[in-house]
Amino acid sequence: MNYSNYFTAVRQASRTLGLLTDEKINRVLHKLANAAVSATAEILKANAMDLARMDATDPKYDRLLLSEARINAIADDIRSVASLPSPLGKILMQTVRPNSMKISKITVPFGVIGIIYEARPNVSFDVFALCLKSGNACVLKGGSDAYNSNTAIVSIIKEVLESEGLNPDILQLLPPEREATFELLNAHGFVDLLIPRGSQGLIEFVRKNATIPVIETGAGICHTYFDQAGDLQKARDIVFNAKTRRPSVCNSLDCLIIHTSRLSDLPFLAEPLAEKSVVIYADEAAFKALNGNYPADLLLPADEVSFGIEFLSLKMSVKTVANFDEALDHIDRFSSKHSEAIVSENTETCDNFLKLVDAAAVYANVSTAFTDGAQFGLGAEIGISTQKLHARGPMALEELTSYKWIVTGSGQIRS
Amino acid sequence: MNYSNYFTAVRQASRTLGLLTDEKINRVLHKLANAAVSATAEILKANAMDLARMDATDPKYDRLLLSEARINAIADDIRSVASLPSPLGKILMQTVRPNSMKISKITVPFGVIGIIYEARPNVSFDVFALCLKSGNACVLKGGSDAYNSNTAIVSIIKEVLESEGLNPDILQLLPPEREATFELLNAHGFVDLLIPRGSQGLIEFVRKNATIPVIETGAGICHTYFDQAGDLQKARDIVFNAKTRRPSVCNSLDCLIIHTSRLSDLPFLAEPLAEKSVVIYADEAAFKALNGNYPADLLLPADEVSFGIEFLSLKMSVKTVANFDEALDHIDRFSSKHSEAIVSENTETCDNFLKLVDAAAVYANVSTAFTDGAQFGLGAEIGISTQKLHARGPMALEELTSYKWIVTGSGQIRS
Repeated sequence: MNYSNYFTAVRQASRTLGLLTDEKINRVLHKLANAAVSATAEILKANAMDLARMDATDPKYDRLLLSEARINAIADDIRSVASLPSPLGKILMQTVRPNSMKISKITVPFGVIGIIYEARPNVSFDVFALCLKSGNACVLKGGSDAYNSNTAIVSIIKEVLESEGLNPDILQLLPPEREATFELLNAHGFVDLLIPRGSQGLIEFVRKNATIPVIETGAGICHTYFDQAGDLQKARDIVFNAKTRRPSVCNSLDCLIIHTSRLSDLPFLAEPLAEKSVVIYADEAAFKALNGNYPADLLLPADEVSFGIEFLSLKMSVKTVANFDEALDHIDRFSSKHSEAIVSENTETCDNFLKLVDAAAVYANVSTAFTDGAQFGLGAEIGISTQKLHARGPMALEELTSYKWIVTGSGQIRS
Repeated sequence: MNYSNYFTAVRQASRTLGLLTDEKINRVLHKLANAAVSATAEILKANAMDLARMDATDPKYDRLLLSEARINAIADDIRSVASLPSPLGKILMQTVRPNSMKISKITVPFGVIGIIYEARPNVSFDVFALCLKSGNACVLKGGSDAYNSNTAIVSIIKEVLESEGLNPDILQLLPPEREATFELLNAHGFVDLLIPRGSQGLIEFVRKNATIPVIETGAGICHTYFDQAGDLQKARDIVFNAKTRRPSVCNSLDCLIIHTSRLSDLPFLAEPLAEKSVVIYADEAAFKALNGNYPADLLLPADEVSFGIEFLSLKMSVKTVANFDEALDHIDRFSSKHSEAIVSENTETCDNFLKLVDAAAVYANVSTAFTDGAQFGLGAEIGISTQKLHARGPMALEELTSYKWIVTGSGQIRS
């Protein structure tokens, strides 16, 4: 099958977004939120067809599952996107050159954004709302497990667009075939930016096979370093929070790095983790310190695969270091450059950590659980970038824009 | 051969740049400018070896050629990079959240930047200076034709680095083998950003084969639209300037789009082009208007390949349109989204053009020859981005930085 119709249609339709006002966009979003709620039965029916084909014990089942409450929450999210200030038309720089030509650098939409994601149908609504608010058309390639749900959602969105006189082609849902993914990965000239959302496997697949610009999101192998000069109670609270608050999210703690002089504090630090049945893979020194002080069935010796792994569950490793530099080396070697923290009362050590650790978000005496667009005060986010190009960390509306240089004059030529 | 030593060495060395001051960087750059001049004989000797292997009629010959004057100009460029303000440590945003944690978004170096370029040895100096100023280490993969010149240049730079106590591994010159290029294109985790500089073929090759982030630069298929309401003298001056000033650069004019009502003005508009022997590929209507009014040996009928081509020489096409929308369609179809211009005295038409044309730089009544970092007041540039991710148009020092989020507090955890 040839998918080029999807791409030419969305490209052409994206041009019609250039003249929409923010007021108009917000009206469409509010209407969409209401339409989503009104169509709850229809969405749940399609969702049930998808669920029927999946084993209910599959971890993907819960992500695929929609409910009345979840649809209401989605509608609230759409309304809150509408309430954010427009990221478009911001003047980033303005200057008049000696020859009197005027130059402005102004934020504009990317044009067409492609999103590849797994079986989470709520993403279809989220992404569309963020793209429309930022003036972008979008091409969705959702997991085939969620195809019925996505089809229902996209048809509701398109109805709203048509009823508001907008071109429904600004949203395209690609068919579930794998070939469609490959065409999207190579839709040069049609899709300006690709954002994969999902497992590390998906993201790596996209990175390796895409020939159009990609923003990598998600994978977080996150460390917290408990320094020689760290406050024990703070470390205990921060580690417990970063590990157990939501173990399945990317900014949850994977490895505690502990200064060798603080090993005697490790049992007290780890105590609350036992209550949540956190499995600890401890290196030799940490194992010795915890042995007898932590439930034996939850304590295992670390091996070569205990570090550099994103657990996404109630598991973590502990690495002992002789000094600050060893901690930096460990982070540099194993971090995915997402979120890294230090617990220390020594200001200089904290400053050096914040300066030298290469990650999207670096923390001193704060839990890594805060790496999140809303927590940073940015509003809704489309993902958390782990690369350094264009966007780093939480990507909100501003990160869904590019810019253009506008030059006006009265016949200036260059000598 | 295994090239991983180059990548591990540069990655590790890049970390040492984090604590350098701007004063120190500038001292190194000034020393390098002087060293380049002092080593003129040595550089020219190596350059002569490269030149000896190339046919002097090859268009690459002039790009490969270095001279005393060119080396002096390179040294001046290095000094001018030193004189620019540092792009690092800028606070892009700062906020204190309701829970009292403080968040700052601060510019930081990318880390390691890879540059793939052709036989222009001056690029080795330019790129190194811009990377050092922005705190980045760099990996150079120059054309094999220039390998002797590049080796001499890199050895001079490394001597200066060592004499200033800097780790010389912050600069790596890859061997001339093609395999080295493939390893660079896939150096995930070692190289943060890849910038190809050179022909469209090179850039496409990089785009298709890289699995690490790339910024596309260069290729410019640029239009100037002479509107119904355009001033004829301005159009004549702008078209002549944009086409003939430096035909080999990416922002030179490739296609004049003319409103059908202005065809009778075309002979006067084109007149100065004949003096420079510009070859015109005219569509049917334009051919008719020019026939007998433009040298017959320079006037050819346009065919299907006359549009959507970057001529990089004294050739151009002329496309006739019935209205503004047809002009937009033509640009949308053939533009490489680099630089696009309108000549019109109608403010509304100009505004719509500036808004609706999707390009890095859009001009009203100004020659496209100005798309250039220095002309925009940005200082030295590393290239002109034609994509929308991260940087668009001239990329100067600011565009060679990423940012990180720094979060400090007193034990904050997320509920």
